[in-house]
Amino acid sequence: MPVVSLMTDFGLKDGNVGVMKGVIWKFAPQAQISDLSHLIAPQNIAEAALILYRSAPYFPEFSIHVVIVDPGVGTARRPMAALIGNQYYVGPDNGAITLLLERAEQQGQETRFIHLNKPEYWLPDVSYVFHGRDIFAPVAGRLAAGTPLEALGTPFEDPVRLALPRPERTPSGWRGQVIHIDHFGNVASNIRSEHLGEMLRQKERITVRIAGTEIHGLVNTFGERAPGELVALMGSTGNLLACVVNGNAQARLGVQVGDVFEAVYA
Amino acid sequence: MPVVSLMTDFGLKDGNVGVMKGVIWKFAPQAQISDLSHLIAPQNIAEAALILYRSAPYFPEFSIHVVIVDPGVGTARRPMAALIGNQYYVGPDNGAITLLLERAEQQGQETRFIHLNKPEYWLPDVSYVFHGRDIFAPVAGRLAAGTPLEALGTPFEDPVRLALPRPERTPSGWRGQVIHIDHFGNVASNIRSEHLGEMLRQKERITVRIAGTEIHGLVNTFGERAPGELVALMGSTGNLLACVVNGNAQARLGVQVGDVFEAVYA
Amino acid sequence: MPVVSLMTDFGLKDGNVGVMKGVIWKFAPQAQISDLSHLIAPQNIAEAALILYRSAPYFPEFSIHVVIVDPGVGTARRPMAALIGNQYYVGPDNGAITLLLERAEQQGQETRFIHLNKPEYWLPDVSYVFHGRDIFAPVAGRLAAGTPLEALGTPFEDPVRLALPRPERTPSGWRGQVIHIDHFGNVASNIRSEHLGEMLRQKERITVRIAGTEIHGLVNTFGERAPGELVALMGSTGNLLACVVNGNAQARLGVQVGDVFEAVYA
Repeated sequence: MPVVSLMTDFGLKDGNVGVMKGVIWKFAPQAQISDLSHLIAPQNIAEAALILYRSAPYFPEFSIHVVIVDPGVGTARRPMAALIGNQYYVGPDNGAITLLLERAEQQGQETRFIHLNKPEYWLPDVSYVFHGRDIFAPVAGRLAAGTPLEALGTPFEDPVRLALPRPERTPSGWRGQVIHIDHFGNVASNIRSEHLGEMLRQKERITVRIAGTEIHGLVNTFGERAPGELVALMGSTGNLLACVVNGNAQARLGVQVGDVFEAVYA
Repeated sequence: MPVVSLMTDFGLKDGNVGVMKGVIWKFAPQAQISDLSHLIAPQNIAEAALILYRSAPYFPEFSIHVVIVDPGVGTARRPMAALIGNQYYVGPDNGAITLLLERAEQQGQETRFIHLNKPEYWLPDVSYVFHGRDIFAPVAGRLAAGTPLEALGTPFEDPVRLALPRPERTPSGWRGQVIHIDHFGNVASNIRSEHLGEMLRQKERITVRIAGTEIHGLVNTFGERAPGELVALMGSTGNLLACVVNGNAQARLGVQVGDVFEAVYA
Repeated sequence: MPVVSLMTDFGLKDGNVGVMKGVIWKFAPQAQISDLSHLIAPQNIAEAALILYRSAPYFPEFSIHVVIVDPGVGTARRPMAALIGNQYYVGPDNGAITLLLERAEQQGQETRFIHLNKPEYWLPDVSYVFHGRDIFAPVAGRLAAGTPLEALGTPFEDPVRLALPRPERTPSGWRGQVIHIDHFGNVASNIRSEHLGEMLRQKERITVRIAGTEIHGLVNTFGERAPGELVALMGSTGNLLACVVNGNAQARLGVQVGDVFEAVYA
């Protein structure tokens, strides 16, 4: 059965996500639909890009990821469907695929981008303000029902990419940024296992500096320290995190997305 | 596959929505179930009526919409199933169908109302306080599995209708009310495209008055103005809205549901 | 079709629940998946135990309940799958099954516990911090796809049980605790219909004492009293509740989980 994931900044109270499912099932009655998140901060494409990047590899082959974080709805921004490795993306061409695409390119995977410009595949009436319902849900439903990607529009080569902050090499390690804070208050940086590389062989020699605090040594898991202790560790998708065991590191440290997050090697 | 939507004021933390799905799948293992909203304000039937009205037309034919906003649970209020046009409703007879029903009548669509009074179609034990689980989920499951509507109870003709606020004609336009404020802070009125009619041919001549502010001219879409600007436009389901481009109009204007919202034609 | 329920303390914004569904569908493409709650208070296993206990009986036979409230992730706590009566549990062996198991034992139902120690049934790479995705979702998917419980690991006999507060007999009734406060502010105690027994024949003779207030007599349903009145009644899963009709008892009484909740018989 085809699998669709939905990610939006629509919130959960207004019925708009449920309506998109109704539309998808009109075209693909058997589609399995997973909500990734509908609590993306309004218009925060970078947050959507990060969650898509972390999540897509765990879905079945040729799952269809619909991402509607769309400050440009109703303007000339391109509606897009894409194949990135073995996963489909459907949504505005606004950079939400940036991280997914970079990894696919590094791994030599196939990528194809289609400008959705064939209204015969959309709902008959397209509003100015809800393309998630009127364009993207029908297109996702068509893909799920077997319509070939190429049929849905015109190929293009230059999808929008976000200029995301990158960690920089320092004499003794890496200087990055806080890029996500999760429901538990765990603080994720953009410093990844690929950056730390050899340094990860001796985790006890890595010190994390954040918000004027130092965390000496990386643990493998929360259970190595007592509840309430501040720890640093590699998260489940390869990013360096600062956490409080069974507690809230954001509240402890008072940090927010964009703050400096450093790893130094002693 | 049969499609069911669920809308309640149950919130998301207590497991009650998930339980209703378990019950539905006992009777209809293949049902696709979409959550419309579980964050309806407690006991706010009018809000549920609005979201149902906007959402139902986008679902496949003969979808089953279960709406449990039920301040009268356990009292003599009728449990109901209905066919309204090509969509089913299951829930208390408390007016949640008001807007859906009016439109169906205007369009000359079929409507049928059944008083759910046959306990053999419910769970064996019916609590006093959770008819969503004990009566309505089983009935939705039965409908999804093919039980005819008429088998579930006794026909009746006079479903409860809410006395909803209507916009009034003024010498120069319409005086309506704020009826919904969405996750983004967009402010929706009950002034609809049907009311404005010919006025919509020259959108630049319409002025919206709300909270002591005037918005001159309607735009088609957010992208026509700069981020942060206050705009008025027709929403994706035909209601006149006041919005801030990539911002929050409720916060800007300090309005709430019930406040006056006027459109005047110059 | 196999049914899976998910309960976690992951919240709804980070994509982690959606990823677990993607993993489950890799192994069991037809599984129906119901979210029970993802707003369990962080690390609050007792709350998960209560919701699981109330919810599982309403699911189809052999549904698979995945509960990931896991302060011990990455430590030596056992990953577990279990059959309890006619329902499966998958998650850490941390006591989340306590109430479900007690009832099954009282009713003489079958119980079997399997230590998940066969990595060939998991994802190839297991992180230290997200066993929900890497171990439990694949195991749930395997069970849903028909893998026998016993194949997944080694049987054991002594699952962890929580030491949950029990109500105590008093000369004139029962002294219990507040164990849950729902979305509406209804206050649930651990005093159950089994405790009250004969006392329930004359509900007007029961007085509830909570937060320095007395509520005389139990009603059957909210509709017996006017909106705004404080009432006591038996909830839909057999617990004694204090509620405000169409209002919020928690806000009125200022109580929290753990506070004393008494029933006395006059």
